[in-house]
Parts: sequence; C-alpha cells; structure tokens
Amino acid sequence: MPSSIPPSLEALIVHLMKLPTIGRKSAERLAFHLLKAPAEQAEELSAAILRMKERLGYCSRCFNVTEEDPCPVCRDPNRDTKLLCVVEEAMDALAIESAGGYRGRYHVLGGCLSPLKGVTASDLHFEELERRVAEEEIEEIILATNPTVDGEATALYITQQCQSREVRLSRIAMGLPMGGSLEYADEQTLQQALLGRTRIVDR
Amino acid sequence: MPSSIPPSLEALIVHLMKLPTIGRKSAERLAFHLLKAPAEQAEELSAAILRMKERLGYCSRCFNVTEEDPCPVCRDPNRDTKLLCVVEEAMDALAIESAGGYRGRYHVLGGCLSPLKGVTASDLHFEELERRVAEEEIEEIILATNPTVDGEATALYITQQCQSREVRLSRIAMGLPMGGSLEYADEQTLQQALLGRTRIVDR
Repeated sequence: MPSSIPPSLEALIVHLMKLPTIGRKSAERLAFHLLKAPAEQAEELSAAILRMKERLGYCSRCFNVTEEDPCPVCRDPNRDTKLLCVVEEAMDALAIESAGGYRGRYHVLGGCLSPLKGVTASDLHFEELERRVAEEEIEEIILATNPTVDGEATALYITQQCQSREVRLSRIAMGLPMGGSLEYADEQTLQQALLGRTRIVDR
Repeated sequence: MPSSIPPSLEALIVHLMKLPTIGRKSAERLAFHLLKAPAEQAEELSAAILRMKERLGYCSRCFNVTEEDPCPVCRDPNRDTKLLCVVEEAMDALAIESAGGYRGRYHVLGGCLSPLKGVTASDLHFEELERRVAEEEIEEIILATNPTVDGEATALYITQQCQSREVRLSRIAMGLPMGGSLEYADEQTLQQALLGRTRIVDR
C-alpha cells in the first residue's frame, strides 16, 4: 500500500473491494467519487446500506426478500396460487417480476446444487418446496433455475422429488435470446434452439 | 419500477446507481451482495463512507487529499522540494505515488481546462501554483496532466503562465504503454511514439 493514501480513504477502498466485480482500480474510482460528491450523497448511501440490512428479511413461505412476512407476492389475492415458479436466487424472481407477465407465485431455493462449491440439497429450500406442493393446491411448477450445469442438476433434482406428486412440471425455454443473431450464438444455444423448436404449421 | 422490490432495497439500488460506472444491473448485484453478506460487512462499509467524508480534506499547499494539513508529502523532509509534479486530480497523484520512484512534491489542479464542461482557469488551482513557483525554490515543474485534448490545453496554459519564471518545465512522456504492442496501438499513440523517440546510440 502506498503510504501517501490517507488511512480513511484506504479503508473505504478496501471495504469497496469486498463487493463483487469491484477491483482495486474501480474501488479507488468509487471512493474518489464519494470524496468529491456532496456530503449528503455519501451520507444517504451510507444510511441506505444500514436501512436495507435492518429492514430486509426473507419471506417465510417463498424465501424471497421482503420487508414484511409473508411477502407482498405471497399475500396478493390476485396472484395465481396454482402456479409456482422455482428460482435459484431472489434476484432471479426480481428479474422475472421486472419482465412482467408472470402472475403466479415464487419459491426461492437460495442457490443451486453445486458439488464443487459444497452446496448440497440440505443447504437449499427443497423441503419447504415439498411441503408447499403437499399443502398448497399447486397445479404447475415452472423450473426457472439457470441454464447452467448446476442449474440443470437442480431442476432434475426437483423433477425427481416431485415424481410421485400430482403436479405438472415445466422448464423455462432455452434458445436464442430475443434480438440475438444466429451468427454469434454459441453452439450449445444453437443446439438447444433447434431441439426446442416449436411448430408453426402442423400437418 | 417493479412493485415487488422491497422499498429499502430499491432505495439502496438507486443510491448505488449514482456512483460512476454503476448501472441498474450492477447496482442490483451490489445490493444483493450486501443483502446476503454478514451484517458486519455492510456496517463496516457504511461506516467507512462516513469516516472518509468526516476525516478527509485537502492540503492547503498542494490540494492533494489528506487527513492532516499540510499533507504527509508536503511535510516529508526527505522529498525533493525543487521538483513539482502538476496533476489534474488527487487520484493522479495517488497513481504516481503507487508507481513509486518519484521523490518530489505535487500540485493538484482539481481538474483540467474544459470549455465544453465550463471549466475555466479560475476553477482550478493555477493562482496557487503561481504563488508556489514564486515563493518556493522550485527548479522543475513536471506537467503530468492527461494526454487528452483538455489535458494538453491545461499543460499549455501552465507553460505560458510560467514563461517569465526561472523554472524548467517538462511534460511526461507519451508513447506505447509498457507491455503494449505496436499492432494494437492507435494512430495518435504511434505517431507520438515516433516523434518522442529517444536516441540509443548518438553518432
């Protein structure tokens, strides 16, 4: 560490570097921005971090992040209680909500099965999912884990878990992203796009 | 804004988006990281922001950021007082310090002349620079403003400002970055590298 950096600035840089995708240079840029910014901006950011940690918890039913328990989605009488979308992280549920169009509920697993990272079934909310399938009148479970090796394994695990249940299982579609081009698509995506083709005219 | 994001999380995302290079997606990722992180990590970051704002000020002599006035570099009896390096921002002085090898002092302008951004000579610490040249026994001023249009204009301004003074002026070298390759260098850099060539064997 160069000795000429003031300790309080260095401390902030070190704390910012603990955030994902923030390296030393980015942390320095952010710290210098806050240094030059009006005092209120820095104070508001500082307070927002604390307030978020204070107020936010997890929904005891679906494990999405929420300020109230159960969360607004679980409490909403207009949501379709027969439809359940299983995602890895709360951020995924957030992305689906932002996209709009989905009117069912969620179940956040809290990650995906990953032998390499030491994440096993007991670390995720599988048991709670099984209980929900048994107790709530769910007709369809949409498996919306990521299209990665670990996400696929997790989807497979749930498929086996629900085999004996009277519930329909589906997997989100995988193929070319909207606005994408075949030219730049990777091989796996192209294969999946061909395999998962939908019929336009059926003869 | 999707209604299902808890307000305190949304507030944090909005505050993070005010930071440079942080867009909505990045802010969401950072906020979710802090959400999952141990409470201490979030509290420490929050406190570090406040502490930095509280403790840090500017050196009254060189305008570098510091916790004490004058700053450690200005007070250091081992630094060469005859050598002055003029930079745009405190971050630039920090970068030179981190690189090591420079033993003189600094003068931070607080930006560069930019007609487009409305930054004129009176917004920068030119007057204070002139006073230092008059009062301190400076032998050489190294102009280390950025090699951009505005940075060059600022270096030119100082050159004219110091014309009548008994002081040597120099400009940091511009050319290929170390480890770079000619193949990927832009035209301006290549031209500058040829123009600024140094002799190896003089005959």
